[in-house]
Amino acid sequence: MATTPLEMPAEDRDLGFGTRVLQRTDARFLNRDGSFNVVRENQSFLRSLNLYHEMLNAPLWVFYAVIFSTYVLVNLLFAAAYLLCGPGALHGSTAVTPGERYLEAFFFSVQTLATIGYGRLSPEGSAANSLVAIEALVGLLGVAFATGLSFARFSRPLAHILYSERAVIAPYRGITGFMFRIINERRNQLIEVKARVTLSRMVNENGRRIRKFEPLSLERSTVLFFPLHWTLVHPIDEKSPLYGATAEGLREAKAEFMILLTGTDETFSQTVHSRSSYLAEEVTVGARFKDMLVERGDGRPRVDMRRFHELESV
Amino acid sequence: MATTPLEMPAEDRDLGFGTRVLQRTDARFLNRDGSFNVVRENQSFLRSLNLYHEMLNAPLWVFYAVIFSTYVLVNLLFAAAYLLCGPGALHGSTAVTPGERYLEAFFFSVQTLATIGYGRLSPEGSAANSLVAIEALVGLLGVAFATGLSFARFSRPLAHILYSERAVIAPYRGITGFMFRIINERRNQLIEVKARVTLSRMVNENGRRIRKFEPLSLERSTVLFFPLHWTLVHPIDEKSPLYGATAEGLREAKAEFMILLTGTDETFSQTVHSRSSYLAEEVTVGARFKDMLVERGDGRPRVDMRRFHELESV
Amino acid sequence: MATTPLEMPAEDRDLGFGTRVLQRTDARFLNRDGSFNVVRENQSFLRSLNLYHEMLNAPLWVFYAVIFSTYVLVNLLFAAAYLLCGPGALHGSTAVTPGERYLEAFFFSVQTLATIGYGRLSPEGSAANSLVAIEALVGLLGVAFATGLSFARFSRPLAHILYSERAVIAPYRGITGFMFRIINERRNQLIEVKARVTLSRMVNENGRRIRKFEPLSLERSTVLFFPLHWTLVHPIDEKSPLYGATAEGLREAKAEFMILLTGTDETFSQTVHSRSSYLAEEVTVGARFKDMLVERGDGRPRVDMRRFHELESV
Amino acid sequence: MATTPLEMPAEDRDLGFGTRVLQRTDARFLNRDGSFNVVRENQSFLRSLNLYHEMLNAPLWVFYAVIFSTYVLVNLLFAAAYLLCGPGALHGSTAVTPGERYLEAFFFSVQTLATIGYGRLSPEGSAANSLVAIEALVGLLGVAFATGLSFARFSRPLAHILYSERAVIAPYRGITGFMFRIINERRNQLIEVKARVTLSRMVNENGRRIRKFEPLSLERSTVLFFPLHWTLVHPIDEKSPLYGATAEGLREAKAEFMILLTGTDETFSQTVHSRSSYLAEEVTVGARFKDMLVERGDGRPRVDMRRFHELESV
Repeated sequence: MATTPLEMPAEDRDLGFGTRVLQRTDARFLNRDGSFNVVRENQSFLRSLNLYHEMLNAPLWVFYAVIFSTYVLVNLLFAAAYLLCGPGALHGSTAVTPGERYLEAFFFSVQTLATIGYGRLSPEGSAANSLVAIEALVGLLGVAFATGLSFARFSRPLAHILYSERAVIAPYRGITGFMFRIINERRNQLIEVKARVTLSRMVNENGRRIRKFEPLSLERSTVLFFPLHWTLVHPIDEKSPLYGATAEGLREAKAEFMILLTGTDETFSQTVHSRSSYLAEEVTVGARFKDMLVERGDGRPRVDMRRFHELESV
Repeated sequence: MATTPLEMPAEDRDLGFGTRVLQRTDARFLNRDGSFNVVRENQSFLRSLNLYHEMLNAPLWVFYAVIFSTYVLVNLLFAAAYLLCGPGALHGSTAVTPGERYLEAFFFSVQTLATIGYGRLSPEGSAANSLVAIEALVGLLGVAFATGLSFARFSRPLAHILYSERAVIAPYRGITGFMFRIINERRNQLIEVKARVTLSRMVNENGRRIRKFEPLSLERSTVLFFPLHWTLVHPIDEKSPLYGATAEGLREAKAEFMILLTGTDETFSQTVHSRSSYLAEEVTVGARFKDMLVERGDGRPRVDMRRFHELESV
Repeated sequence: MATTPLEMPAEDRDLGFGTRVLQRTDARFLNRDGSFNVVRENQSFLRSLNLYHEMLNAPLWVFYAVIFSTYVLVNLLFAAAYLLCGPGALHGSTAVTPGERYLEAFFFSVQTLATIGYGRLSPEGSAANSLVAIEALVGLLGVAFATGLSFARFSRPLAHILYSERAVIAPYRGITGFMFRIINERRNQLIEVKARVTLSRMVNENGRRIRKFEPLSLERSTVLFFPLHWTLVHPIDEKSPLYGATAEGLREAKAEFMILLTGTDETFSQTVHSRSSYLAEEVTVGARFKDMLVERGDGRPRVDMRRFHELESV
Repeated sequence: MATTPLEMPAEDRDLGFGTRVLQRTDARFLNRDGSFNVVRENQSFLRSLNLYHEMLNAPLWVFYAVIFSTYVLVNLLFAAAYLLCGPGALHGSTAVTPGERYLEAFFFSVQTLATIGYGRLSPEGSAANSLVAIEALVGLLGVAFATGLSFARFSRPLAHILYSERAVIAPYRGITGFMFRIINERRNQLIEVKARVTLSRMVNENGRRIRKFEPLSLERSTVLFFPLHWTLVHPIDEKSPLYGATAEGLREAKAEFMILLTGTDETFSQTVHSRSSYLAEEVTVGARFKDMLVERGDGRPRVDMRRFHELESV
């Protein structure tokens, strides 16, 4: 689709942001969960806020708590408005004390907002009837908004890619390779999955210690289907930035392996993305991933999910 | 879009999963209906579960059965809750026995959840009224969820590609060709349809019998429009992995022809996918597909759908 | 995105369907409105039917007529069901004759399906109450379905591209060119618009008269923005299949110029498509399109839409 | 995706519209907000109108004002219809004067359209009951339409890219460069962002002063991630159309730098677009953008948003 860092001239290969800013920091840039470890200060809160996006990305309990609170609040407000219409506004009212009257108005508001309308309580006079007209519209628009939001939340294509807890550097076809393993946690099929790995580390250039970004070529960077696990391998040959690197050297260089996966979620036919990263401390040298194949004698390919994170020494 | 196996170095051409796992099995990998014949053992049920995706992919009767059951269950629960509010909670109640009272509460719950509110029964007291407020919100969110789900189910772009029952190996332009035929079963137009075919078979390499994956080049791999049927042809020339292959040889090698189609559904302007495969047993050698053209003298191209699967000897 | 016919070897360039079928017909293949002039006989009606797609593509009045009829029909059925529950099923009933009772049941059904529930009529007994529970669910699911359908109908990305009534062959940069003009009828912006033109005509090959498909190269096949009209030009140089062609020759060869446009609708950020074609009879030789620029002295680019189809002799 | 102007032969590089029209105007073509400064005269209003698109792109207050007005209007119309059914059409009516009766009918209509149905007022007779049936359906379809519209409005992928107020021409790696700065105003992540910049200016060609469009190559035209700001640089080397240009020369040539950004909004996994432009008057020569990095000693990359537009002399 777009030009990747791999295709850019060497000196321009970076990940797309003020190089000057990142070159002077040695903190992790990409967190394990794919979020960016950067801070924007003095950003206008209101301009950056998009209520809809916030509601989409909020945890499920926050999502429902916000909806519930809004529902209660709107009814509290309309209840107060009905009280302001005077004592005769609610026909069928039996409440006596102000507290009882507010509670009664609240429940009448619920029956109106939700368009139940039992009828034991009903609006009397133009003021209360006009409020009902407004509240009914608010209710309909609220349902419209909640419906759209629910749909958007649940139908968003999400790649639930599980990354192996650790990456390894292990023997590979006569040389060594940097490897990690991924699997699709969900049952939906991902197809045409593409992986890109970038090594970020501190180097000394012209006497200054700056952070450098280099792409790592993969033995295979795209797969058509992804029904099982996939072990990604960067062969550490002479052209690799990792050639001759040691565990200590990587830690000292604050090395970070950043991963971007893109693929197509077959359920919604939409492109999905997944990001993660490994710090040098999360790479084991001299180990490989355990074989996940289970032999049952029926010839069907079977993999044991429990072995996904497991390593064995080499 | 993405690098295809065709563009990869030969030894890395596979379909994207633990090569080690698949190389040691001789079972079918891709079923005729496009699903994968692989098993994941010990996968966390909850982590793999996505209620929304399950509901999207469930058969229609399961979809409606789940909705109906949930509707009944929610009403049963709220009915019990109304009973717990005490005998006076439902104003207008005429029920006497506990069974009658539960049934009455159930129907009151229906009238509330669905926001009908006839009013012959209405809530009395704070407890019942609060339950009504909660049930009304549950009802609205339930409708929101069901609406989103219905929309997602029906608007998903689906390619209903029909594959000919059998593939054939038949004379083609002086040599022979591996051929199969596809057609769009639905009336929606598919455009820019692209096909990729991979041959998977067991071979002896370095004394071990392993499964090997090789792409088959097509006489034509993309079509702009797809209003009629399309016969895909892999010419079996000297460069083809099928060169010199016999029916017996293919069966003995557990050969499987795997097909991935991608295209754009014009109705929703979204990319759609279709997969299928032919085992060696599903390939007829020495037959070709019957011509589907019908001559009516009006000059319009007409095809007879009944001949779609039909073969004739050559 | 995908390999286009332009990039295929010459003998394989076609539009993606049984070449044998089309080579033997001299009828128009692509209609002016972009639909295909092909007939599928003996297609299973049920398999090809997709109610949802039909409702999406139906004219607006058919769409609403189907919804209205379904609404009436469902209420007629439920009304009959309420009558079957016996005379006491509708509390508050005042109807006497069977006709009156059916009408009353019909209106009660409306009040239930739409979840109005005035309460003057209300269900009595388990049978009628159970029917209400079912009808309420049917109503909710019906609203869900209609909501999804409305949304899908209105939010589908549609390219309303207007094609000039006639194409022309006119002098162009020292040679001649085949030209036609397009404009976006709607106010939404289309970006990255790509055009592909294919010439289809009958030729004599090896003594047989068959239909041949050839791509026509364009002076410019892609534009980034499309805020005004766009005149597409195929330069008729020595490499052009139209080199030396005459109006009579094109008509005799049943020539058809088929056009496929793809672009991105900015409103929905989705890919849109448009197809059309010109028969030889719809091409004017020796005319060019009138300049649409209007000079108002304010320096702003202004085009006069009325001149869009207008030609002038050269 | 599509062939860009950069890849086209030089003489055909333009932005996709009647070159003749634009070559003769020296007005700004692309406004700062990304809209096009062109006028279509005599366009059929109805053909260009798409109510749905208008409602999608209207400001929020217009959107809600249209919905509110429609709601009131529909109720006014149905109220009149109920009055036409005669004095006994509304059971429970207490109104006496015509004004009171119309108001009462209006509020009854609200209770019906919104499917509240308190029941104090209820329809009497076939005429009023039939109106109720129709109004209920209108209400349901209205909710369906409003739900779809709300969802479409809020879920549209929008790139809120902020462009620096001014572009600069400043020293860059031994030569000078044309630079501007962008940032994502929202919290959603944009990935695989691609930029294309086109210079448009008046030149003298064959004695005529015409507008010419030329792409400007970028030091880096694509970034994988975009979590911070991004400074785009066009190096002004010998091959650049800006080579040797001065501030006065650019102003005299009515130069306009047009920018098209495309990227993927991760929240919806959809492609988003953003356009803007700088006139010669909006370019500062001899200034550069202030560093936005804030040092806090915790090693995390921090940028100060307030410095985004700030320049400093060089």
